[in-house]
Amino acid sequence: MDFNKLSLEMHENNKGKISIVSKVKVETRDDLSTAYTPGVAEPCRKIHANKDDAYKYTAKGNLVAVVSDGTAVLGLGDIGPEAAMPVMEGKSILFKEFGNVDAFPICLDTKDVEEIIKTVKYMAPTFGGINLEDISAPRCFEIERRLKEELEIPVFHDDQHGTAIVVAAALLNGLKLVHKNIEEVKIVINGAGSAGISICKLLLQFGAKNIVMVDRAGALVEGVEWMNPAQAEIAKKTNVEKESGDLKAVIKNKDVFIGVSAPNIVTTEMVATMNKDAMIFAMANPTPEIMPEEAKKGGARVIATGRSDFPNQINNVLVFPGIFRGALDVQATDINEEMKMAAARAIASIISDEELSEEYIIPSAFDKRVAVRVAEEVAKVAKETGIARIM
Amino acid sequence: MDFNKLSLEMHENNKGKISIVSKVKVETRDDLSTAYTPGVAEPCRKIHANKDDAYKYTAKGNLVAVVSDGTAVLGLGDIGPEAAMPVMEGKSILFKEFGNVDAFPICLDTKDVEEIIKTVKYMAPTFGGINLEDISAPRCFEIERRLKEELEIPVFHDDQHGTAIVVAAALLNGLKLVHKNIEEVKIVINGAGSAGISICKLLLQFGAKNIVMVDRAGALVEGVEWMNPAQAEIAKKTNVEKESGDLKAVIKNKDVFIGVSAPNIVTTEMVATMNKDAMIFAMANPTPEIMPEEAKKGGARVIATGRSDFPNQINNVLVFPGIFRGALDVQATDINEEMKMAAARAIASIISDEELSEEYIIPSAFDKRVAVRVAEEVAKVAKETGIARIM
Repeated sequence: MDFNKLSLEMHENNKGKISIVSKVKVETRDDLSTAYTPGVAEPCRKIHANKDDAYKYTAKGNLVAVVSDGTAVLGLGDIGPEAAMPVMEGKSILFKEFGNVDAFPICLDTKDVEEIIKTVKYMAPTFGGINLEDISAPRCFEIERRLKEELEIPVFHDDQHGTAIVVAAALLNGLKLVHKNIEEVKIVINGAGSAGISICKLLLQFGAKNIVMVDRAGALVEGVEWMNPAQAEIAKKTNVEKESGDLKAVIKNKDVFIGVSAPNIVTTEMVATMNKDAMIFAMANPTPEIMPEEAKKGGARVIATGRSDFPNQINNVLVFPGIFRGALDVQATDINEEMKMAAARAIASIISDEELSEEYIIPSAFDKRVAVRVAEEVAKVAKETGIARIM
Repeated sequence: MDFNKLSLEMHENNKGKISIVSKVKVETRDDLSTAYTPGVAEPCRKIHANKDDAYKYTAKGNLVAVVSDGTAVLGLGDIGPEAAMPVMEGKSILFKEFGNVDAFPICLDTKDVEEIIKTVKYMAPTFGGINLEDISAPRCFEIERRLKEELEIPVFHDDQHGTAIVVAAALLNGLKLVHKNIEEVKIVINGAGSAGISICKLLLQFGAKNIVMVDRAGALVEGVEWMNPAQAEIAKKTNVEKESGDLKAVIKNKDVFIGVSAPNIVTTEMVATMNKDAMIFAMANPTPEIMPEEAKKGGARVIATGRSDFPNQINNVLVFPGIFRGALDVQATDINEEMKMAAARAIASIISDEELSEEYIIPSAFDKRVAVRVAEEVAKVAKETGIARIM
């Protein structure tokens, strides 16, 4: 199917994808006096007396802003805030469909880190959470870090953590299948941008000990010159054996390849140099680092991609609706590391040992059980870690 | 009815009033590929190539931000952004109900004029229009002026212009009823804040020649010391006979009293000093400057208030849904003076000469014909004045 053509027609026919509706009726004078003046003054007074009552009397507790500056949209790059809008509207409707979260796209006409931080802080009273989206690295790190620090509502950069959580879920199930242990497997991550670094951090938290990150210039080794600050930091915690060279050199004798990089940069021959029962997560979109059939030829046992037309799709939609649902349900003040790990485990847990197979390590993007399970586990862990306002 | 209690219950039961929904379905993989990746890249590319295509492929063209800093909410004053949210949500649902406009509340956690201007400009790519709401004077003047100047989408401060437009509509019909001429009538406006000044400006545009504005300190006369810059400016265009003194002195021999001030400050005796067939628009809320029965006793012929339980309710809901509907329909780059005058005439025109009476000079807030007529006339005038992108 020509999704480009279909998508263009659909967007034009509907004039975008989101709409704002009323949850209450305003058909009579009494309705108007209840929903608006004079009655509306009363919830205003209550919230004025106690700010937290905003969760009780307004939509805040279920509202998430999907914030982008349009600098790193899909594979299209820096296309600007107006052109980012179809993606942010798409994200918003997925929030609703899968997590019953009311999400609203805010596309910002500034790329300045301080201005973005200020703008999000200024608009925060309206929202119960902030989902950052398609903001280019390394600016996204600082923006997320500062907003997490300075706001008392959950802030989540989906491009980093959403992908990391699904990859972790897939890895947990994949390792179970091939009977390998996360502490022992050798992992190479190709692409040391925001998604790659975030995946690496989460896998380290899950106990991975042997990860080598590779970027265009080669393996990240502590001390090399070309790394940006985020890469230099992660290099300290990875590549314990100081491997150097390009992907072709580093991929040798690894158990797991994780690609968030570019199309067709892994060959069958490269996969053949990996350890037995190799796992390939080739997530470049729309064309993966290696096509599944080629990876298979090289001896890979478990293969995942970002695509819906192959088995094992790594799709963020498994994460963000459920993780925000859970955080909002208990009025969490943050989305912390424990909640991210809980989300990954929850996604993995959907597939029973009996169901688990090479072609089924990750639930379908349409599996409605996922967001529910993720939300439950995330809410539970938010309470356990003491960041839930509702106990 | 106890609308405070009803309102509190309703807000709590529904957790606020707005919800965000999808206009398209996402039930299958093909749906997902059309509404989101990979298909969504195509509308993104089109908009990147031509920014105006945002109106074609996104919700922008029907999205209005209802922006407040919570500094002048209802009669409650500076209650802050969280507490302003019930009012902004209320406004949003009225936009939808009466104008089919998708409006979204943004409550800002800053009172700094420059920061508010910047924030609104940064978020403007998402929206087709900006409705400013409940921002205190005199900051609201500068914020609106600058945003109108610097943005290419309509910006409208409803507290100023919405009220002014309904008052003008009511006055046009009231004058017709009593056979007086707008150029000749003597008008006193009590309350020289943002609403009062805006009413005055619009009536001047409609040809009124004799208006005296009165504030707590007395009549505005060119040259007196206590006036703020906005008052000093309007004083140059009003009070041609240099009347001085308080409201009691100034109201004498006037044809029209317009109050946007405080409860119970006009007495029957004061009304009795006005000209024959006097008109009283007593809009203080919830208690008017004078109750209708008292005004009647003083000889007033036409009486309007802000309340729904008396005849002739001056209600902004007659204006903002239709004026934005019209502006959005033709992608107007502004809401100019001509459009405001057209809106007032459109509201007045709903009532035929046969229907016109002392108790029916303004259509009901629930008259569905109003927003439609206002939108048509406003769109027409936007085209005629050359600020419509769609001809």
